[in-house]
Amino acid sequence: MDIVPNPLGKKTIVVDWGTTSLRCTLVDSDGCLLGNLETQAGIQFIKDKRFQATLMGVIAPWLEKHGNVPVVALGMITSKDGWVELPYVPCPATPADLAKAIHSTTLPNGSELHFLPGLTDTLRAPFPDVMRGEETQIVGFGLNDPITLVLPGTHSKWARIAEEQVTGFQTFVTGEIFALFSQHSFIAKTEAKDTDSEDWEVVASGARAARDSDAADAAFLSQLFSVRTGMLAGQLEPAQMQSYLSGIVIGNEFRQAMAAGWFTKGDRIGIVGNDKLKDRYGQVAELFDLKIKADGEHEAVAGALKILAQKN
Amino acid sequence: MDIVPNPLGKKTIVVDWGTTSLRCTLVDSDGCLLGNLETQAGIQFIKDKRFQATLMGVIAPWLEKHGNVPVVALGMITSKDGWVELPYVPCPATPADLAKAIHSTTLPNGSELHFLPGLTDTLRAPFPDVMRGEETQIVGFGLNDPITLVLPGTHSKWARIAEEQVTGFQTFVTGEIFALFSQHSFIAKTEAKDTDSEDWEVVASGARAARDSDAADAAFLSQLFSVRTGMLAGQLEPAQMQSYLSGIVIGNEFRQAMAAGWFTKGDRIGIVGNDKLKDRYGQVAELFDLKIKADGEHEAVAGALKILAQKN
Repeated sequence: MDIVPNPLGKKTIVVDWGTTSLRCTLVDSDGCLLGNLETQAGIQFIKDKRFQATLMGVIAPWLEKHGNVPVVALGMITSKDGWVELPYVPCPATPADLAKAIHSTTLPNGSELHFLPGLTDTLRAPFPDVMRGEETQIVGFGLNDPITLVLPGTHSKWARIAEEQVTGFQTFVTGEIFALFSQHSFIAKTEAKDTDSEDWEVVASGARAARDSDAADAAFLSQLFSVRTGMLAGQLEPAQMQSYLSGIVIGNEFRQAMAAGWFTKGDRIGIVGNDKLKDRYGQVAELFDLKIKADGEHEAVAGALKILAQKN
Repeated sequence: MDIVPNPLGKKTIVVDWGTTSLRCTLVDSDGCLLGNLETQAGIQFIKDKRFQATLMGVIAPWLEKHGNVPVVALGMITSKDGWVELPYVPCPATPADLAKAIHSTTLPNGSELHFLPGLTDTLRAPFPDVMRGEETQIVGFGLNDPITLVLPGTHSKWARIAEEQVTGFQTFVTGEIFALFSQHSFIAKTEAKDTDSEDWEVVASGARAARDSDAADAAFLSQLFSVRTGMLAGQLEPAQMQSYLSGIVIGNEFRQAMAAGWFTKGDRIGIVGNDKLKDRYGQVAELFDLKIKADGEHEAVAGALKILAQKN
């Protein structure tokens, strides 16, 4: 059974509520993960702000069995389109800074419900950058080691940790570009899409092209077209276009992140996330001569417990 | 009445047949444009390769009135998904080089039909770049002056002219990024869309952000997210998000094209195209301290006549 540190020392339900999904985890007083429920009830699918009814429906069996255990919620649930809108905490921020901004209320059964805030980097131009949920994953990853982290996703985050703080971060819309081009662009018109999306050698060739292109060919708006020209040149099979696209976009994320100062070759970085993207990013990181700091899983759960434990 | 140079000295029908539209123009022996028909019958909408029947249906009135005038066709109609697939002519290429690759056939009424080839730049990495149709517009623009041209569109082309040749070119998928993000992404999709899509001041603020960002904030995958963070920061109204996106993507096209060596500040460039994008690109070009070479219109028609005149 998986275990996370539980500084609260009591049973707690962690609710990771994003745009597209709702993940609830029941943690025992010693950190054992007693149960996990994942549904598609992301906030974008909740009608008429029926957040409380949705949550109570999902966790009712746990509350019946274990009583009014406290609940801690993170993610887009605290955005303008969520249940309660919380202001962003500015970087640099410690877990205690995040804890100070917790908004607490009570559920119908008597359970305390604690909403965790998001984070903003006000120094980014042209506008402050924002995250909701990733800051909790970062805290769960651990802040004791000065390091750059990448959190892959629809909107990947690169973040810097130093002196037990999140000192700054930057969003890259890599996953969104991949989804848009593979679903709606010239690439989507290939009938063979998706059949070979796990072809690492093809992904790697795209990532290497992103890494090694000289200034003229490095133009990202231009490299995206190489998915098509590769097919026209007979160098890419239609079934390989999505893998190549994946390499081009992730490779460019690393190239652009390096140019933006997030790492230099030879650095050690952390990759935070639980899905298969973590492995893919680890492979691309190696192409950029990066070493990977090993980490655990369940960062969102561990981080939520750690932040809540700092409250008051 | 509009006039283009007509070195053929006889009535001709020019067919600009792309992915999404079919434009037919009847030119008199002296270059007067006698008629223009534009339909949505782009090649992607033609079922069962019924290209000949489609074309004959559109130009039948002209053939009835003027007899078996020759027809010259350009664009994606010579691609793999078109009527007749023609190989690309490699750069550097003169109009005579393009003319040598013309494929000719005869229509049912006895009219000659001449297909113009596309162009490839085999020196681009990781794969050769390609165009079909833009090379004809470039010839119509004129090759007598060494200059860089930009042809705005779904897949913008930057091309270099020298010594009466097209010496090389590069594709930027700017228009496609704009369309994908404005139609399918919550970064820029808004119910207030399009109401203010001609708000130049907002476009310009996006283009200036693209132009002026330092290395860290210049990461294009990151700048795209600023459309959303600008709205979250209260700096962009929802109705301004698409204008701002337009500035971000076109501004980044110019920034990337400059980094790729297509121009330096103070240069004179040509902008080729007939739609409103031409004006928008002209405005952004001024933000990059570029001067614009004045040109005519109907470049595709003028270029098709000029290339065909070089045949044999």
